[in-house]
Amino acid sequence: MGTISFSISGVLTALKKRMDPFGILIIAFVTAVGGGTLRDVLIDFPITWMRNLTFVYVIVGASVFAVIFRKKLGYIRRSLFLFDTIGIALYTIVGVEKGISADFPPIICIALGTMSAVFGGVIRDILCNEIPIIFRKEIYATACILGGVTYFLLLKTSLSENFVVIISGSVVITVRLLAVYFKLSLPTIYNKRELTEGPQP
Amino acid sequence: MGTISFSISGVLTALKKRMDPFGILIIAFVTAVGGGTLRDVLIDFPITWMRNLTFVYVIVGASVFAVIFRKKLGYIRRSLFLFDTIGIALYTIVGVEKGISADFPPIICIALGTMSAVFGGVIRDILCNEIPIIFRKEIYATACILGGVTYFLLLKTSLSENFVVIISGSVVITVRLLAVYFKLSLPTIYNKRELTEGPQP
Amino acid sequence: MGTISFSISGVLTALKKRMDPFGILIIAFVTAVGGGTLRDVLIDFPITWMRNLTFVYVIVGASVFAVIFRKKLGYIRRSLFLFDTIGIALYTIVGVEKGISADFPPIICIALGTMSAVFGGVIRDILCNEIPIIFRKEIYATACILGGVTYFLLLKTSLSENFVVIISGSVVITVRLLAVYFKLSLPTIYNKRELTEGPQP
Repeated sequence: MGTISFSISGVLTALKKRMDPFGILIIAFVTAVGGGTLRDVLIDFPITWMRNLTFVYVIVGASVFAVIFRKKLGYIRRSLFLFDTIGIALYTIVGVEKGISADFPPIICIALGTMSAVFGGVIRDILCNEIPIIFRKEIYATACILGGVTYFLLLKTSLSENFVVIISGSVVITVRLLAVYFKLSLPTIYNKRELTEGPQP
Repeated sequence: MGTISFSISGVLTALKKRMDPFGILIIAFVTAVGGGTLRDVLIDFPITWMRNLTFVYVIVGASVFAVIFRKKLGYIRRSLFLFDTIGIALYTIVGVEKGISADFPPIICIALGTMSAVFGGVIRDILCNEIPIIFRKEIYATACILGGVTYFLLLKTSLSENFVVIISGSVVITVRLLAVYFKLSLPTIYNKRELTEGPQP
Repeated sequence: MGTISFSISGVLTALKKRMDPFGILIIAFVTAVGGGTLRDVLIDFPITWMRNLTFVYVIVGASVFAVIFRKKLGYIRRSLFLFDTIGIALYTIVGVEKGISADFPPIICIALGTMSAVFGGVIRDILCNEIPIIFRKEIYATACILGGVTYFLLLKTSLSENFVVIISGSVVITVRLLAVYFKLSLPTIYNKRELTEGPQP
């Protein structure tokens, strides 16, 4: 589900940038699997979508769908948003669990989970020549991090793994829904005048 | 030959952006070997140019040449274009064959071939802070994909591998030449008004 | 020390771009460890900061410090600059030595050292939607390359490894200090009129 909604989000961004079909497909692909790919490269795992073609089919299908029905996607915005929210929850948990399976410290596992959910969008924005939106006003990442923290807190209890997954996934979903509902986002910290210099490696 | 023309194309882009010699060399390098490097990272192969210095020498040589004769490159534009076209054909086939050697499914092998030929330019454009041109109006990628498909279709016949390589390479070259000759490119699909919202992971 | 000053430089850039705390942290992180991470991915080494949390703590600490005291960083600019200069010297040498330990040819080892010191800043600039500053007017990379060359020249002498490290590190520091003192940078080579066309892979 995450894959579908991420692909559609990629298609929409690519359409806004007036890309051709090849560009649209690449952006859809990158949005959907970019985060997981970066994660797998960093932890030296084989890359899922290169062996399991289901991802490829889903992304191509969702992209074709999004291009054809692009004028009508407004009507299913609510479903897309739900897909998306459930999607990041799943991506986060997959990332955290991959990290655990390779014996990384908890803080890195949480980072890997967040990366899986969030960096597809970052790469999409870079390819579209934008500052990644998530760095500016989204609470996406915060939801993933809180979900990841919950995962590790619960892991220390006697709860079964299924429960741990369900509860920490729900945390991601709830935080995201609340944030959007109340229009919360992290505040930006800046001050024009002061920022003129500094080392630039 | 691809390496030479890709390096020169990198140098020209870097010059347009008023880069210094270090920047020019990096952009030339990235244009020439970026696609293959990304491919090798994704499939966990050792990276060719790090062990085989021929690439390094060719890129440095081509870059120095391009900087010195930058005012006269117009005269050899046709040769450069030919180099370039033959180059993407070779890159595509190398990519496809690496994919096959690691037992990836055909669709992924074709993607790897296309990536080898095309992503150097994508990384170049990102480093130069442009939307990759190939996502907007080039038929580059289509030529590579068709060549890759031809490769797999012919592989099922009883043709010798050499023939398969030659024919599918020729497909890439022919499609590219025809596209440029007839000024073909993929149409862009867009519609300003409709695209205002959507999930943004 | 490099990690500290790189993180602070990342924070400052992110603040200029009005990012939120998540964005700031990511940019700090990428600036500090991006070069080394890219290097490790290319040579297929495990990534240091994912196993050794010291980096994570230092980066988070330096970022929090930089955000809190952002108005006062001007007063410690000189120390930051020194940290930074010593930092790139250390990063360069670590990169060179990793390359040697994996038996890469000298030219590639020097490239790996330079990459470690310099590409964190490149990735930072890409994420902030800027053309990497180092490609335009910095002598950063030149200092690293000269340090790397010194390393290999000295390696052929009978000097102990410690001396080799100290001298080649000093070369990086000296070149950088002289360049900044005399406001040296590589000249840009360009010529507006001539650069209109060329192959674009």
